[in-house]
Amino acid sequence: LNRIKASGLKLQFCTNETQATREKFVKKLQGMGFDISVAEVTAPAPAACRILKERSLRPHLLVHDDLVPEFAEIDKTNPNCVVIGDAAENFTYANLNKAFRVLIGMEKPVLIALGRGRYYKETDGLKLDVGAYMKALEYACDVQAEVVGKPAKTFFESALAEMGVPPQQAIMIGDDIVNDVGGAQRCGMRAVQVRTGKYRPCDENHPHVKPDAYVDNLAEAVDIILQQL
Amino acid sequence: LNRIKASGLKLQFCTNETQATREKFVKKLQGMGFDISVAEVTAPAPAACRILKERSLRPHLLVHDDLVPEFAEIDKTNPNCVVIGDAAENFTYANLNKAFRVLIGMEKPVLIALGRGRYYKETDGLKLDVGAYMKALEYACDVQAEVVGKPAKTFFESALAEMGVPPQQAIMIGDDIVNDVGGAQRCGMRAVQVRTGKYRPCDENHPHVKPDAYVDNLAEAVDIILQQL
Repeated sequence: LNRIKASGLKLQFCTNETQATREKFVKKLQGMGFDISVAEVTAPAPAACRILKERSLRPHLLVHDDLVPEFAEIDKTNPNCVVIGDAAENFTYANLNKAFRVLIGMEKPVLIALGRGRYYKETDGLKLDVGAYMKALEYACDVQAEVVGKPAKTFFESALAEMGVPPQQAIMIGDDIVNDVGGAQRCGMRAVQVRTGKYRPCDENHPHVKPDAYVDNLAEAVDIILQQL
Repeated sequence: LNRIKASGLKLQFCTNETQATREKFVKKLQGMGFDISVAEVTAPAPAACRILKERSLRPHLLVHDDLVPEFAEIDKTNPNCVVIGDAAENFTYANLNKAFRVLIGMEKPVLIALGRGRYYKETDGLKLDVGAYMKALEYACDVQAEVVGKPAKTFFESALAEMGVPPQQAIMIGDDIVNDVGGAQRCGMRAVQVRTGKYRPCDENHPHVKPDAYVDNLAEAVDIILQQL
């Protein structure tokens, strides 16, 4: 990352993290030694806030307690939509029924999902992700959620807008074949898959998504990019 | 009901109730004055038990506490499938993750759902039904649930088998256009919709299902049936 920054290239971090504010997320990465600031992070909650403001939507939030501050400036009285994130322990029977009742009470239910992940791994095992609960509400209300976050095209577009760079001049580097690579490519960017983290060998035979290149780690991606400057 | 029974016609009650055993369900109806016995009730849990036995499946149960006795004779050690019912308060974050982990740990996940209802009404408001949670697990595990209960064809077939009657000689009377009328018709039965309970005037313009007749109440259905004997 330091080499990218030193080269003068613009850099933006795209995360689907919705269990914490960007502030908290950035602090964690800074603690690990990364040179990163809040302004460099594109995350689903701020992207959702832009949509809420643009369309005068007042959300009922079904999100993690730690994410609530991201919605501090949003009017939440008399809700006319539901925003669902990875609420974790907040995915209770009562909270799901509450969000459902808000949706089913609308003439045209509006459901905004901060990602569509199926599941993820934590130290104590696999957990259902926001996408599973999104599907439950979609089915119950016969509605299709609007997904904010990777791999949504609008999400990558807002990251590009932050940098002021057209998609043809941007490269996405990520470990997730669908959310990172597929999403960025559909937005007109090139995308490199890193063979670390979520990467699985079977990704290389993915039926729909083919990365522009593979690298074994982030440092190798930086090498290649800097060589071509 | 007494007139039907007095006429010598065979009678079977088909319910999607999965919050209680048939014993409890029957006691409730008897308390309301109905002449009904457990053997006359076709319900999803016993139908699921038949499937579990036939296919040597050992279920992990995600169901209402009051339904567990229906599975008393089923081996539940070392589960190789998940059975989901309307678990109500048992639909906790922890229980959903537990059921998910059982499923995702299988080479070919087997999910059996005791119905596919979207939601229902209780005195304290609308509640998400088993179908919504089924969809969450389906999505997370990329699997399609096998649905037991109305409107599944196999469910009506087992009710007919209980009576020893071919579908052409049976009539379904129900208030639910899809689960009762549509399901029975797909099984080769005729079906009458009662304009009470779940009935809504818009049902009469349903895009796929057209009842063989409408009646204003159960008594009228009995009148028509007895007239034609």
